[in-house]
Amino acid sequence: MRLASLVLACLLPAAASAAEPTRIPDAAFEIAGTLRERALADDTAWTLVESLTTEIGPRLPGSEADARAVAWAQAKLRALGYDRVWTEPVRFPTWERRSERAEVLGDHAQPLLVTALGGSPGGTVDAEIVRFDSFEALQAAPAGSLDGRIAFVDHDMERTRDGSGYGKAGAVRSRGPSEAIRKGAIGYLMRSIGTSPHRVANTGITRFDEGLEPIPSAALSLVDADQLTRLLRRGPVRVRLALDCGWTGAEYTSHNVIGEITGREAPDEVVLIAGHLDSWDLGTGAIDDASGVGITMAAGHLIGQLPQRPRRTIRVVAFANEEQGLIGAREYARRHADAVSNHVLAAESDFGAGRIYGFSTGAPAHAQAASQRIAEALAPLGIEHLPGKGGPGPDISPLAAIGGTWAWLGQDGSGYFDLHHNADDTLDKIDPDALAQNVAAYAVFAWLAAEAEGDFGSAPKAAATP
Amino acid sequence: MRLASLVLACLLPAAASAAEPTRIPDAAFEIAGTLRERALADDTAWTLVESLTTEIGPRLPGSEADARAVAWAQAKLRALGYDRVWTEPVRFPTWERRSERAEVLGDHAQPLLVTALGGSPGGTVDAEIVRFDSFEALQAAPAGSLDGRIAFVDHDMERTRDGSGYGKAGAVRSRGPSEAIRKGAIGYLMRSIGTSPHRVANTGITRFDEGLEPIPSAALSLVDADQLTRLLRRGPVRVRLALDCGWTGAEYTSHNVIGEITGREAPDEVVLIAGHLDSWDLGTGAIDDASGVGITMAAGHLIGQLPQRPRRTIRVVAFANEEQGLIGAREYARRHADAVSNHVLAAESDFGAGRIYGFSTGAPAHAQAASQRIAEALAPLGIEHLPGKGGPGPDISPLAAIGGTWAWLGQDGSGYFDLHHNADDTLDKIDPDALAQNVAAYAVFAWLAAEAEGDFGSAPKAAATP
Repeated sequence: MRLASLVLACLLPAAASAAEPTRIPDAAFEIAGTLRERALADDTAWTLVESLTTEIGPRLPGSEADARAVAWAQAKLRALGYDRVWTEPVRFPTWERRSERAEVLGDHAQPLLVTALGGSPGGTVDAEIVRFDSFEALQAAPAGSLDGRIAFVDHDMERTRDGSGYGKAGAVRSRGPSEAIRKGAIGYLMRSIGTSPHRVANTGITRFDEGLEPIPSAALSLVDADQLTRLLRRGPVRVRLALDCGWTGAEYTSHNVIGEITGREAPDEVVLIAGHLDSWDLGTGAIDDASGVGITMAAGHLIGQLPQRPRRTIRVVAFANEEQGLIGAREYARRHADAVSNHVLAAESDFGAGRIYGFSTGAPAHAQAASQRIAEALAPLGIEHLPGKGGPGPDISPLAAIGGTWAWLGQDGSGYFDLHHNADDTLDKIDPDALAQNVAAYAVFAWLAAEAEGDFGSAPKAAATP
Repeated sequence: MRLASLVLACLLPAAASAAEPTRIPDAAFEIAGTLRERALADDTAWTLVESLTTEIGPRLPGSEADARAVAWAQAKLRALGYDRVWTEPVRFPTWERRSERAEVLGDHAQPLLVTALGGSPGGTVDAEIVRFDSFEALQAAPAGSLDGRIAFVDHDMERTRDGSGYGKAGAVRSRGPSEAIRKGAIGYLMRSIGTSPHRVANTGITRFDEGLEPIPSAALSLVDADQLTRLLRRGPVRVRLALDCGWTGAEYTSHNVIGEITGREAPDEVVLIAGHLDSWDLGTGAIDDASGVGITMAAGHLIGQLPQRPRRTIRVVAFANEEQGLIGAREYARRHADAVSNHVLAAESDFGAGRIYGFSTGAPAHAQAASQRIAEALAPLGIEHLPGKGGPGPDISPLAAIGGTWAWLGQDGSGYFDLHHNADDTLDKIDPDALAQNVAAYAVFAWLAAEAEGDFGSAPKAAATP
């Protein structure tokens, strides 16, 4: 069956697939209802999130806390009764933040709250500010126009439920520094990609294009970006930006941590649910992504508490180093590329701890009725079937790129960017009831996908097939 | 008249005063209505607050910005058409914050967000934490029980409209460090006196009792205090607290900045309205107390725009160094002690920029009807007469202590301690409409007090009379 669909997927567009419809036995829905109710009354996820954020705290990839987090995740999966628990190594270079400081110089001298972008080099620059409204405006600046200056991109991010504002703002962080270097800039400041009106700045990874000499690059809190803009209205502004941070030159080995509730009939076929174990260093990585780790570990655990194992395996992955470029997820996809067809459906919880409002899968036509039925089982949780919306979570995307089918359990992210990558990403921002709703959704989804007869279209992509 | 009431005030309890009732001419109320409406439509206060917080920024007493703020205030008072503008020197020692850092050591290693208390010495201590629920619990600890340890007082402050929670929590900051030293502590941590759920810590002055060796003393954000408490539930916790700050040993001369709208009939009799010009260094001192400075400067300015001067003088004072012990206000009271009877009524705006909801004065019986009539003119602004409530603002208290009568324009402080003394005290937190309501109230109050015939009971207090 899976082989047939694999071949078809390679030969035919998904819409024209002649595969037999995937179906989920009625008996599975009864148990799904039980899981749903148990999950809503269960505090396993909360306990896990509290433990991870309190005992380990911030988990910068490659830091001393990274190793503690890996040990923590294994211990928790074992304690939660997972049938198999193991790790897979993930290797990457390490970046460190030591100190960061910015100040306006001259007649209006005052400090500005900044945080270095991940990947920024250290260094102190002292120069005039040139402000741009957007990444596009920076791109349009003439070559050499920023010689010896600090570029400041003041792009304002939109607050949305689905996080679409993040995508639009992304280039300011990912490509802004390189663009500024090309125009001659010696430093880079950006308005945080975030929505918090509080005095917190949002970090996040940036990359410098090959051949460019990296420059100190940092984000201002929204409050400080507005302050700088007000000062610029009064005349030229010089700023001193002093960052002590950078790639250490060392390589570090972290691990993806994996736990399985082994399938009773098709143990090699897996429904993968995941979060990522690492975090930025400014908060305690509560909504990014202790919540995802807690939600998925708790969902698998609840399924493991049922009288019998699910038909397929539930695999929970706590990915290493998502923040610096999906490093753990890419390694997972590389290592498991041969088994892509066995990854029946994969979903990551990595958009905070807000309630889930939408569900969809990237499954082809023959599995859309099954997706619809899963959505019906999620409906009592206030979740709508939204086919055509959503997509793979960040750490699912490398797997999806080689043919794994994703599921999307879309969380309300209206408040996510108040906390994302800043110091306010802490336990107290999580609503335990909303967290339990997430666990219920993941448990129901994973259970039904594991009980389904027939596939959801996972198959090596033509490009990835030898 | 004033002399008579002075003598009576010394001889008789206020309630038994035989002074003639103070009255306000009807014509004054018509003009009060005009002032009220003009103020509600006027943005002078907002413009002042924007200017002070943007151009000067944080204004730590004795810092380079202190001098800039003094120059700013004089220039603004002149530009606003005040009849007389002058300064009076205020001398005090200076305290500096250079850097601050705290971290949990050991198995749960992680940083904690702290800020040094004003007046704390620098130093690095690395010791076990002993937690107390309250200042009283710390007091009850046996002598020597904190030998070589860091005391942590986790007192939770109540959010109230009138700020009463601050008074109750005050000892944790003012007396906590000295109490901890007496028990043997080598460092002091406290839960911030504040209500913000965000990652900001609240500073504020502390004093060490004579004869004690000061210890590094800092406040944790509420989030970090909760984190530390959670960690302590798991077992002993060691923290390293590293503060670089302290009294510099230098003395500094700042200035109270004073502007007058000179009275047409009784220029020596003054209605004093005030804010303070200094601020803590973490935010830009927007609600503490650029708003008070802006509100009172704008109120005086609006009165100055009337076709004729008020009967008495309106004196606007921007006090120096309120934060480190009402230094400017004490100096003002000392310098003007002989003229206490001439200070008809005095009010300070130093509780943020929330709407004013209540009004009262400390006037004796013969002036209560006049207070009531002022309250009636404030009623259209949503302000209630609350005799028996309120008291002198911080910087009015030294004047009140020697016999000046205070007025209270009580602001809604429900959100004040989200911002007070922390990094979030910035311009964007001020609602321009609420600010204008404050200006309207101060303009109406000051105008009517200046037009009143008869006194409000100011007279040298017996204790202060030779």
